[in-house]
Order: sequence, then C-alpha cells, then structure tokens
Amino acid sequence: MNEKIVPRTFKGTRDFLPPEMMQRERIAGILRGIFRRYGFAPLETPAIEYLDVLMGKYGEEGDRLIFRLAYRDAATAGLRYDLTVPLARVVSQYPQLTRPFKRYQIQPVWRAEAPQLRQGRFREFYQCDVDVVGSTSVLADAEIVALTEEALSTLGFERFRIRVNHRKILAGIVEAAGLGPVWETPICRAMDKFDKVGAEGVSEELVRAGVADEARARLADVLEIRGAPVEVLSAVEPILAGTAQGPIGVVEMRRMLGYIEAFGVRPEHLTLDLNLSRGLDYYTGPVFESVLPDLPHIGSLTGGGRYDGLTGVFAEVPVPGTGTSIGLDRVMTALEQMNALSVSCSPTLCLVAHFDEATLAAALRFTARLRKTGVAAEVYYDADRLKKQFSYADKRTIPFVAVIGPDEAAAGRVTLKRMESGEQELLDEAVAVERLEEAARRLTSER
Amino acid sequence: MNEKIVPRTFKGTRDFLPPEMMQRERIAGILRGIFRRYGFAPLETPAIEYLDVLMGKYGEEGDRLIFRLAYRDAATAGLRYDLTVPLARVVSQYPQLTRPFKRYQIQPVWRAEAPQLRQGRFREFYQCDVDVVGSTSVLADAEIVALTEEALSTLGFERFRIRVNHRKILAGIVEAAGLGPVWETPICRAMDKFDKVGAEGVSEELVRAGVADEARARLADVLEIRGAPVEVLSAVEPILAGTAQGPIGVVEMRRMLGYIEAFGVRPEHLTLDLNLSRGLDYYTGPVFESVLPDLPHIGSLTGGGRYDGLTGVFAEVPVPGTGTSIGLDRVMTALEQMNALSVSCSPTLCLVAHFDEATLAAALRFTARLRKTGVAAEVYYDADRLKKQFSYADKRTIPFVAVIGPDEAAAGRVTLKRMESGEQELLDEAVAVERLEEAARRLTSER
Repeated sequence: MNEKIVPRTFKGTRDFLPPEMMQRERIAGILRGIFRRYGFAPLETPAIEYLDVLMGKYGEEGDRLIFRLAYRDAATAGLRYDLTVPLARVVSQYPQLTRPFKRYQIQPVWRAEAPQLRQGRFREFYQCDVDVVGSTSVLADAEIVALTEEALSTLGFERFRIRVNHRKILAGIVEAAGLGPVWETPICRAMDKFDKVGAEGVSEELVRAGVADEARARLADVLEIRGAPVEVLSAVEPILAGTAQGPIGVVEMRRMLGYIEAFGVRPEHLTLDLNLSRGLDYYTGPVFESVLPDLPHIGSLTGGGRYDGLTGVFAEVPVPGTGTSIGLDRVMTALEQMNALSVSCSPTLCLVAHFDEATLAAALRFTARLRKTGVAAEVYYDADRLKKQFSYADKRTIPFVAVIGPDEAAAGRVTLKRMESGEQELLDEAVAVERLEEAARRLTSER
Repeated sequence: MNEKIVPRTFKGTRDFLPPEMMQRERIAGILRGIFRRYGFAPLETPAIEYLDVLMGKYGEEGDRLIFRLAYRDAATAGLRYDLTVPLARVVSQYPQLTRPFKRYQIQPVWRAEAPQLRQGRFREFYQCDVDVVGSTSVLADAEIVALTEEALSTLGFERFRIRVNHRKILAGIVEAAGLGPVWETPICRAMDKFDKVGAEGVSEELVRAGVADEARARLADVLEIRGAPVEVLSAVEPILAGTAQGPIGVVEMRRMLGYIEAFGVRPEHLTLDLNLSRGLDYYTGPVFESVLPDLPHIGSLTGGGRYDGLTGVFAEVPVPGTGTSIGLDRVMTALEQMNALSVSCSPTLCLVAHFDEATLAAALRFTARLRKTGVAAEVYYDADRLKKQFSYADKRTIPFVAVIGPDEAAAGRVTLKRMESGEQELLDEAVAVERLEEAARRLTSER
C-alpha cells in the first residue's frame, strides 16, 4: 500500500458534520419559506466566474482575496467573492427577466484570507442574500425591513433591533455641519463607531480627521437625538432644512416608516439611528442592519440597503436595487450562545432493533410503515446484542427504540422504549405507530 | 465610465434562474425529506480540498480534470471532483463519528472538462449521494434500494426499474465460463453493454476481447436468463456452484432480495440483471442502478453499490460502505420530458395591487395578513396603472391579483381576480384570505 495521506480540511474551511448541518438546514429552510412568502424566487449562479466579471468591484484588497483558478492561465477565472456581483451579472445578462426582479440566493463564497491572521474569518462561508432589483420605491426597502423582522422572530430571536437610516440624511447632516461632500466618508466612518466608542470616542475620531470645533459640536448635537423613529425624524428635520439631500432623505424615511408600520413590524424592533452608515461607497438611500442588544459582541446579524449603481460595470443604464444579507454564521453563533439550538446527531426518531434473522422481516415491515407515515426510522443493520444497539441509539441521540422479538412478531406487537426515561411498553403495532407519529409532530413543532 | 464588461457565465457552467431553481429546490426538498425518514443525516464539506486528498483516486483522466487553484502554487489545492473522496476523508478524519455513519450530501462538484467537446457535460454540477459507512450487512444495501424506490416514486416517476446485481455473482460467472480473474474487467465491460447492443453485440465485443468460443457460449447462456429476481437467482445458482465467489454472491443476493421485499418495494420496480456491473474497479458487492424504460436515452437516474476500500488511502484499516448517487440533472431532464415540471416564475400566489398612496396602508396590512397565514404574497411597488400591474402578474405567472381601492378599503373588502379565468369577485377581507389559503393548500398538494 502507498503511504497514507493525512485526512485534513483545507486551512480556513470547515466540514459541517451532521449535528451542525441539521441546524443549518433547519435555518435555511425557515429562511427559504419566509423569502417565498414575500414573493422572492430562488437563484443560483456558478462558483466559477471569469476574472473580469469579478475584478475591480471589491477594491484592491478584495481583488487580492479572490481565489484564482490555475485553469489555462491564472488570468481566466476565479471563485465568486460574494453574491452581489453574480446578481449584477445575471440582471445584465438576461434582460428578459421581469423587473422588479426579486431573488434570494443562499450559496457559499470564497475569500483567500490568511486564516491564521484573522480569527473567525473563513475562506469559505455561506452568504444569504435577498434583493429587489429594478424598483426605486422605498416600499421595497420597507419590505426588506419587514422580512428581516419576520426572519429573526421565526428563527427564535426575541430581543433584537433593526437599525435604519438614510444616506441622504447623512449627507444632509454633514452639509448642515458646514462641511462639503468630501467630508462625508471620514465623518460617517467616525459616527458609525458611536455604539462602540460613545460620543467622546466619536469626537476624538473627528478631531483626528481634522473636523473643526464648530462642526464637531453640530455633529454631537445630532448624535444626541434619541427616541422613537418618527420623533428622531422630526427632531433632525429642521437641522437638515436647506441642505441639498437632507429633506429628500427625510421625506423618503417618513414614507418608509409608514410602510414598515403598515407591514406590522413591532415598534420595539425598530430604531432610527442617525449614526448608522454601513458600506460607504456603495449605498445611496436607506440603510439597515440588525443587532442583538444582549449579544453585542456578535455584531450585526443582517445588513443591507439601497444601491443604485449595481449593474454599472456591465450595462450603460445602471439598475437600482435594495436588499439585505443575512449572516448565517452569526445567526448560528447567536442561537448557540442563547442555547436555542437543539443538539441532535441524527434525524432518526425511532431505531428498530435487529432481534434475529427470523423476526427481521417483521422489523423491516414496521420500519417501512413508520417511514410511510412520515416518522424518521432506521433499522439496526447487524445482529448485535441488544445492549450494543441501545448504546448506538444513545450515541446518535435517537429518542425511541422499537424491539420486535418472536413473541411480539407473532402477536403483531412492538416493545417501544423511550430512551430518555428508560420506560418501555408492549404495544399493538398500530398504537406504536400512532405514538411515534405523535412524537414526530411534537418534535416538528418544537424545532 | 470604464469600458463595459460583457456579462457571461464561465464556459461549461450554468445559472439557475427562478423557474428552474424552484423545481430544483422542490426536488432537493423531497429528497432531503426521504433521506431523513430513512435515518440519514446531512453532511457538507468544503469546495476546496488539498490536492493530495483529491489526487490519485479517479485515475489519470480524473486527475487531469481536477480544477486547481492558483493559490500559492498550483500544487496546493483544488476543487472537489465528487462527494465520495470527501466522505472518505471525513470518516477517516473524525474517528468519533458513530458507525454505521449514514449521511446524505447534496453539493456541487467541478470537473475541468473541455465543454465544447462533450455535449451535456458540465464543469459544475450537483451530486446527491446517500451512503452507509461502517457496516458490511446487505441490509444496508437493501435499504438503499428501498430508498431509491421511494425517492423515484415520490418525485413523480411511475414506470422505472431498479436493476440489481452482485459483483461476486459476476466473478462467479467469469470463473464458470472457464476464465481467470484477469478476464473479469473485459467481460464485465462487454456484458454491461447488453442493453445497448444486444446479445450479438456483446458476443462481437467478446470476440474482440479474445474470449474463446466455448467461454462465449457459456456467457451467452447466462445472458439469456430472464424472469423475476428470485427466478434469475435460482437459474444462475447451479452455474456458479463450485466457483470461488459465486455462491457467496448468491447467498447475499437472496438475503438482500428478501429484505427488499420486506421493505415493501414493488416487484415491478425491481430486476436482477446479470449483465449489470457498474464501476469496475470500485464496487465489491451488490451493485444497483435505476432506469426509465420509456426514456432510455437519459441513462441511469441513480447508481451505486457496495465498496470496501473507501478509506484505504487515508487509514490502515479500510472501512466498508454502500450507497447510491442520484443524478439531479437527469432527474430534471426526465421530469421535463414527461411534462411533469410545473412552469412557474415566482413563488407568489397573490399580487396585491398598488391603487394609490391613500389605500396603500390597507394593501400592506392585507399583504402582511396573507403572509402570516402562509400565503406567498407580494405588493406591487410603484403607483403604475392597474393594467401594467396585471401584466406584471401575468409575466411572473402569479395566479391571483388583489385590488384594494378606496371603496374596498372603507368597507374592509378586497377585489380578488383569478388571472387564469379572468373572473373577479368583491369579497370581505377575511373571505379573501380564506380563498387564498385554500388555493395555497391545493397548490402545495399538487406540487
């Protein structure tokens, strides 16, 4: 035999073994169901894209992080870096797609990070994006916020905040502070840190950026505005009067808040945070993200906003869009830290034991009957001692074991053991099926 | 602005736009449900693997078809070529996994084919594998056959055949024809073509391979054996008497057929085909595949068998396994050719029209109410003419449009139009919700 190869995963990537995958599939299933109820349709694009399609969209660092294929020459193709560029490509490539084009996409992306240098950054991870392409209506933005609330609630989060703001309000704030558009980027970057470093931290940052005292004082006033979204909006409105973009932002935000309310979003889940800016060069209208007040270290679970230049590199006429990205890894981590993930190694509800060759046919028929009624069941393959079979059920966290010995087989009965309590009952086969169906229903509604 | 980049997909890969993706998700959902009911748990592995993990398992051609990354140097890593090598790696890497390890895995794989040369071959395609690792019991093989039947039936296939055979029966047939083990490969390869080229074609092939007349006559006799699986087995049994492996194959096959029957597999779905061999160097026990008699050009929808050397390259002690691969692309093509795929561009059941700004809040509340009851609904974003909104519903194949104008809003009512028939009714909001819930239930049960 040849020398053995050490089995190992490529650095910075992960295997998802059954206990984690079962949770991941549950979460993806919940999200797909919500996306569809909101009228979003699924899209998938290939992992490999031509390099000219990928390059030049993520800045210099992004370009460096693209995994290139050694296919023909390294200049030909690479692995997708996100789901936004593929969306832009698809929208430009298939003009026959009806607009607004509402799509969701849940696929992995790849980044050639040096994994040892950046903790918690992976070279392969899933992105989960929902976007509306081809409408300028803030109704679309409001819908993304409503969808975000429904997604987080359904996933099991109770205390969370969806933070919203508007890039035009931010532009107005900068102008109202007496500063030109060139200041937007450094000021937004500083204000965005408010939640982490507080008002003083922001002020220090602004000093470092070279913002004059008077402008800083005006910005500080804005950051002190607190209250319900409509109150914050009313408080900032007079400050923005006379600026080029501020009043447009206020009008759009007011309409958006109205739509969000009509969609039934609960007020405690929504804040208008004037310091929120998100992707600086990218977003042009409303921006939003969601955070967990109890787990601030996890960062935002979702984030997005309106962008207008999506297809700019592919088409003459740029197409507007809005959408959000849901951080599946962060959602998983948060649910884990809330102990809201059930730990289960197997989907099986009932292990049907292997008593002997003579009763095996009865055991197989019972297994098939359970499966037909929707109960996840498996039969033990080998004629091992029952003790070993129970231990297998235990290790695989299978809640029930059914035993059909000669007496049971002759009488059409089953001994059903509940693994957690250890109690066991001799039941008619039909009754055992009912019990297990009932347990399956309970499990489904709990999950 | 820079020069525009031509939006295009990497050669040999595909975008799955919503109409196709909705079908793909439906099919994947059905399969996942069945896998779980059979006690298989999900597994996912990274797209990128170290080259030494990938190489040397697929033969020389396979090695050439591995997409290599231009990461550091091309000798480091590549994209996975199938789901079997990652399974072998996982089983060797995590000895703590309870065995038998039953997993399913639905993920894309990549092959650097020259796509223009080979029609219908893609450089990226999904594989869908179900395997039992760590048991030598033919009960596991029988279960894979039962699962295959349930999967194909549930996907909508009625007329299909699951063909089974056993590599040890094949070895016995070769020995009984008076030929040594070195002949197994050319003879199996020739016999495997029986369905395409008939008895004469096989005979010609055997002449070309240099098989003597007497041996050919004996092989021809075997190929003429027809009948129900147990009959075929009884007919071949005396021929194999005295061969080294044949009798073991017969005993195992007889037990396997008993288990398959006990699992409730319908006899018309099963044949024992003595010419079937599948992967020559790979399988060691039972082999199986499924075909559609009415669509023979599609080839096998599923294929698999028992292999014993799975983890050989990673571990000293090889681990036995059995499993099958379901060809998602072929399943899609077959359902398409049977007109069994519903064509739908959108998951939305009801478009809620945008009448004017005054009634919009009522429309949004109605939309939210539909979604809460599980009805997929979307609201039209812009204040366009109703005609344009109906045309949007039409293009997106949305079956219902709800209009809430000022009269409807004041009375808590909705005008509901059925797009197919054109009929429309003025209904109380609650009644409209009920109608749509009913339609959603009908649609779910149809799909």
